[in-house]
Amino acid sequence: MSTTDKLTKRSENFSEWYNQLVQKAELADYAPVRGCMVVRPYGWTLWENIQAGLDRRFKETGHVNAAFPLFIPLSFLEKEKEHVEGFSPELAVVTIGGGVKLEEPLIVRPTSETIIGHMYAKWIKSYRDLPVLINQWGNVVRWELRTRLFLRTLEFYWQEGHTAHATAEEAQEETIRMLNVYSDFAINDAAVPVVPGLKSEKEKFAGAVRSYSIEAMMGDTRALQAGTSHFLGQNFAKAFDIQFLDWNNELQHVWTTSWGLSTRFIGAIIMTHGDDQGLILPPKLAPHQIVIVPIFKSDLEASRVMEVVERIRQELSGFRIKVDNRSEVTPGFKFNDWELRGVPLRIEVGPKDIEKGTVTMARRDIYGKPGKSVVSQTQLPDQVGKMLEKIQASIYERALTFREANTFEPKNYRELGEVEQKGWAFTWWCGNAKCEAKVKEDTKATTRNLPLEQPGGEGKCIVCGERSTQKVYFARSY
Amino acid sequence: MSTTDKLTKRSENFSEWYNQLVQKAELADYAPVRGCMVVRPYGWTLWENIQAGLDRRFKETGHVNAAFPLFIPLSFLEKEKEHVEGFSPELAVVTIGGGVKLEEPLIVRPTSETIIGHMYAKWIKSYRDLPVLINQWGNVVRWELRTRLFLRTLEFYWQEGHTAHATAEEAQEETIRMLNVYSDFAINDAAVPVVPGLKSEKEKFAGAVRSYSIEAMMGDTRALQAGTSHFLGQNFAKAFDIQFLDWNNELQHVWTTSWGLSTRFIGAIIMTHGDDQGLILPPKLAPHQIVIVPIFKSDLEASRVMEVVERIRQELSGFRIKVDNRSEVTPGFKFNDWELRGVPLRIEVGPKDIEKGTVTMARRDIYGKPGKSVVSQTQLPDQVGKMLEKIQASIYERALTFREANTFEPKNYRELGEVEQKGWAFTWWCGNAKCEAKVKEDTKATTRNLPLEQPGGEGKCIVCGERSTQKVYFARSY
Repeated sequence: MSTTDKLTKRSENFSEWYNQLVQKAELADYAPVRGCMVVRPYGWTLWENIQAGLDRRFKETGHVNAAFPLFIPLSFLEKEKEHVEGFSPELAVVTIGGGVKLEEPLIVRPTSETIIGHMYAKWIKSYRDLPVLINQWGNVVRWELRTRLFLRTLEFYWQEGHTAHATAEEAQEETIRMLNVYSDFAINDAAVPVVPGLKSEKEKFAGAVRSYSIEAMMGDTRALQAGTSHFLGQNFAKAFDIQFLDWNNELQHVWTTSWGLSTRFIGAIIMTHGDDQGLILPPKLAPHQIVIVPIFKSDLEASRVMEVVERIRQELSGFRIKVDNRSEVTPGFKFNDWELRGVPLRIEVGPKDIEKGTVTMARRDIYGKPGKSVVSQTQLPDQVGKMLEKIQASIYERALTFREANTFEPKNYRELGEVEQKGWAFTWWCGNAKCEAKVKEDTKATTRNLPLEQPGGEGKCIVCGERSTQKVYFARSY
Repeated sequence: MSTTDKLTKRSENFSEWYNQLVQKAELADYAPVRGCMVVRPYGWTLWENIQAGLDRRFKETGHVNAAFPLFIPLSFLEKEKEHVEGFSPELAVVTIGGGVKLEEPLIVRPTSETIIGHMYAKWIKSYRDLPVLINQWGNVVRWELRTRLFLRTLEFYWQEGHTAHATAEEAQEETIRMLNVYSDFAINDAAVPVVPGLKSEKEKFAGAVRSYSIEAMMGDTRALQAGTSHFLGQNFAKAFDIQFLDWNNELQHVWTTSWGLSTRFIGAIIMTHGDDQGLILPPKLAPHQIVIVPIFKSDLEASRVMEVVERIRQELSGFRIKVDNRSEVTPGFKFNDWELRGVPLRIEVGPKDIEKGTVTMARRDIYGKPGKSVVSQTQLPDQVGKMLEKIQASIYERALTFREANTFEPKNYRELGEVEQKGWAFTWWCGNAKCEAKVKEDTKATTRNLPLEQPGGEGKCIVCGERSTQKVYFARSY
């Protein structure tokens, strides 16, 4: 582990802190192809835990997984006008296969609405075939110019749900249902507070009627779009001729949705919870929930300590546990190492603990001495469970408090400009794209979303002063 | 479900039976790109169960998962001579990214030894970093000309393990360990009897020192290579400069292995167990282990039957269970449908069962009346568990008996030609590639592998008569 160089402080240079931390914690590394990443085992295990949390929720809401091809004929993209306009600058194109120039180039999927639409047209015949509720876990490629590990890479990993329904109402319900699934996951598993809401016309998905997102505030107060859910209306159904015979035996186009959450979410976890010492991982998702560090000086001490460590490991086998028994580094080195890597709870076992029948527990979220407590070995399984719950709740509360402290309600356009340097602005907005564009030009902030929970009443657009019944978040974003 | 056309009989046309069955059972479908497949939810759930069975074994043997990029610079492939010769005819090449012609074309990974080798060179410094035991679940692309769903497609899904070790012995042990993991999975989870053994020089992986495989006999007696494990020696370590400081502080190249099992294995399951009625899925991997079909004529009967069905479903919640409550089709249609789709056990619940407190269980592996039994509802959970075990054991035994009945030990070259039309030949072979090539030319059979379990002693090569101490399987293969 390359923790020999010191981590740049988060408080001094957030961006540099992030870049270093992703690599030092061995979450990911740069690939030899520009803009691509290698997700290392520690990062991939975190992603597997994210997958498990989401997949369980998808299955509970009636979805099944499938796999659609990586390659899409270029002509497919062209069938939906906005879709091709949105994605064509970002395509990776295969022009040679088996040594021969292809007659029609194939694109590497940037998203799969088109090829899935094509298959749905083949499979769906009658209202009895609806709804179709399919999700896919996979990789996609978007040719981005400025890339950062997890946040924006050429290839990334995600899930994309694609559903087809008999009515607009059902499709709209599904869109909101999955947005809520994302919120529930973010809040309860990742301890990341999010705002679910509607994207503006300007910010919506290319080809959608309406896009929704969950937005999270990072530790530098910038916003990160952490998941999206789209109501696609009949746009793709018409482009791909997905029709069904309804209850009256009449042919109708289906209504579709799509929704996705990607490895970008790992970036959200890092930037929501991390501190100067490194990562702080939510207990529900951490690859190791607990690290045990044995402490001893002599061989005799070692064997007595390791005996207790082994017993504790077995008693705590219901948790994801790591015993760090490296002999070439000191306990102090191990403490720093696992703090950097964000393990929520450390258990130290030394010769004095053996005598007293105790261990020392150290919480990652409260750094140093205040986070330490001495616990009887007999009460450990119970105490550990409670402490992990406490950490999970505590880092959520901290992030929520931070977001609230850095969300402002500017009274006028000048104040909007000021607060955009410090955090999010929550303001009335008339909905006009011109006002949105002006804010972006003046402050670099974009509309994040119109939250589903609105205060009600009405006010005046912060830009043009028109009457408005909706409030929006403006923020600089990742 | 498109079960309206009758399935071609396996006994009449094995190949056509296979092609129809994959689609009718909704395991997979053809994609609009030549040679690519869509794995439908039923097929993907089967794959998820295969993944779970393997992933558990990988983790128990100390492996972790990670993700390496889809794109590999063309120059990487060229660093290992045999590797590039083997794979260059099969490459898909990306030449355009973000609208611009790329300076160096990128290939879509056909396998990841090269890019992983590049990363290992960066990560591995000292013997303390070894062994590296990483696996990756993902998709790869090989531009095949003749394709069949699951058996050979342009894009397929697999896992590829890549490990690095300090000594040749350790790497060789790992190669065999993972071969044994595959055998254990095939036999115990998939009920597919396999022969683990060494591939010939001609048939080995491009870039390997030694390749091992598990070979299974399909229902038409042809062989299918169902998983491979390669000892790569220092070939990739030298090509990518993967070096470590050993215990004496001297720089050495590591020793590597790779091993893979793919969605092709689904083809093996279909062709090992299936019959004229359709699929027979092994209980340990089946998406639905049990289907419950309620039988009723009136609404009154329906409500009484469904009450019992619901109670049974809850009592059997430890199993993967499907209740078929479609109202638009008859029970008879449902029986055929789930037989086609290979559900191991069917439970029928009708009005008479309600009166008597019984249900009818029907085993999929013993078709028709002989496979049926009447069971008391109170004993159901116990009986179901036992019956699923019995089916799992029974289909394994049947496949093993079939393989043994169709494996021959020809006495001379003429007999070899004859038995190749009927099954596998197990014969002495001198190891010379010329003899191997002659058999292929004369009979279309290739060497499958030299099984790890050898009879001992010696004999004469079936082709040239030279003395030999090893026996090999010759067979026509997929």
